[in-house]
Amino acid sequence: MKSINIALIQHSFKKNKQDTINCTIDLIKKASGNGADLVCLQELHTTEYFCQSENVEFFKYAESFDNDIEYFSKIAKDNKIVLVSSLFEKRAKGLYHNTSVVFDKDGRVAGKYRKMHIPDDPGFYEKFYFTIGDNEFKPIDTSLGKLGVLICWDQWYPEAARLMTLGGAEILIYPTAIGFDRTDSKEEQQRQLEAWIGVQRGHAIANGVFVAAINRVGFESFGDDGIIFWGNSFIFGPQGELIAKAGDKEDEIVQMTLDMDRISQVRNIWPFLRDRRIEFYNNIMKRYID
Amino acid sequence: MKSINIALIQHSFKKNKQDTINCTIDLIKKASGNGADLVCLQELHTTEYFCQSENVEFFKYAESFDNDIEYFSKIAKDNKIVLVSSLFEKRAKGLYHNTSVVFDKDGRVAGKYRKMHIPDDPGFYEKFYFTIGDNEFKPIDTSLGKLGVLICWDQWYPEAARLMTLGGAEILIYPTAIGFDRTDSKEEQQRQLEAWIGVQRGHAIANGVFVAAINRVGFESFGDDGIIFWGNSFIFGPQGELIAKAGDKEDEIVQMTLDMDRISQVRNIWPFLRDRRIEFYNNIMKRYID
Repeated sequence: MKSINIALIQHSFKKNKQDTINCTIDLIKKASGNGADLVCLQELHTTEYFCQSENVEFFKYAESFDNDIEYFSKIAKDNKIVLVSSLFEKRAKGLYHNTSVVFDKDGRVAGKYRKMHIPDDPGFYEKFYFTIGDNEFKPIDTSLGKLGVLICWDQWYPEAARLMTLGGAEILIYPTAIGFDRTDSKEEQQRQLEAWIGVQRGHAIANGVFVAAINRVGFESFGDDGIIFWGNSFIFGPQGELIAKAGDKEDEIVQMTLDMDRISQVRNIWPFLRDRRIEFYNNIMKRYID
Repeated sequence: MKSINIALIQHSFKKNKQDTINCTIDLIKKASGNGADLVCLQELHTTEYFCQSENVEFFKYAESFDNDIEYFSKIAKDNKIVLVSSLFEKRAKGLYHNTSVVFDKDGRVAGKYRKMHIPDDPGFYEKFYFTIGDNEFKPIDTSLGKLGVLICWDQWYPEAARLMTLGGAEILIYPTAIGFDRTDSKEEQQRQLEAWIGVQRGHAIANGVFVAAINRVGFESFGDDGIIFWGNSFIFGPQGELIAKAGDKEDEIVQMTLDMDRISQVRNIWPFLRDRRIEFYNNIMKRYID
């Protein structure tokens, strides 16, 4: 593809699953109407971010995984878009994943990615809900090319970004649910937001790829002190140039046409992939070098 | 160490080696007088950045490698500092390295690091002068703790930053010589500068370490169109927070006291090292996943 029109759908949780999905669909239709080829949704977009507490009741959301796939398949087909969704997957009884399902323009499932790095921090008790993915870090092949779909906590790991790049991905896509703890100082909140943007910008630069993160907005409280999701969904270009960024409060579509030739231009002047010292990287497979 | 006073010495080339060294020494003394524990010099700080052309005459600079070590050993000892130098090493006839030699406060050589990633781009013909390093990516142990010494082009490689972190480095230090091509547009120059800062900021965040880069300033022309070295030497903290940054034109000492406890604080709230999926990283050792 020479160019791809990408749309990131950022929104708040609308009090229940149905209203939230309705909001998502309205925004998808709008993006599609504006020429989107590729629409990317935020992490666990059909529901609240339920991982704020450890509660077995929430496993009910994973029961509808197959129905959710069927539903969003139709949405992709109806809108003629490649669609990056983020769903709660029941794989077996008592075995769940945080899974992105990617649909092609004809509605077929192009691929799935099960979140590989799972966080567990106050307000983000994901290790209770999701087992770690057992797929490779492998891009998903679509009619728009290879998409490096990763999820939220993966965004802090240069290894994941590099592996997707080596696998041929030209856009890294991170459905995300991240926000502020209200009890943190303004300065700490600002540092966290900037770190979140900064580390992903680093992936764009180091790999010469586009990077898109789609984050939710709005305050949600289902335990602890609640989370103020900070929005700021963004797209960086392969030289780390900011292409677009959303605000921190409103539902928003971030939509831009990406010039995919830019990747070759940037990599040809800064050929980082040429000079990797792969014969000296083996210790990356260690937990720590004691 | 609970805290380390670090000084980065940024300066221009002073027309010849002796005058340039004299300038460096003056700045080192000043930094030491202001309480520096650790002084870091820019890449190939004793001379011009001669890699702008391929010229066998410049190998003469490597002849004095042993003398240079002796000289800077004494400087470290006299000033009671850990000193990160960057020298042109003759290892054997016709075999040269771009090498950082690190001296401890007593003048002994704490360790050497031979640049592992070697660039070769118009104006930066380093593959002509330097063979690739054959050391591991291993921090250098000093009385101030383990230093993750890397050099310039290494700064674009997340693998190098990660390996130094896994080896226990708490500060990554990059002696650097990077600048603008005068024929590039202002916008391109700005993007390059921001990418250079951004990728290293990413290393700080992803690894929870301090990152310091020491770059030269001033215009040097020994071939092609010359290079305007862009200075901007900087220090980032382990959350990617900017601690200090130099300007783009003047000789300057960037000096700050680093609170080393900050690393534990940041890593404890964002424990990225905990969740690495090392059993799925093996493809990083591939050139490309075809």
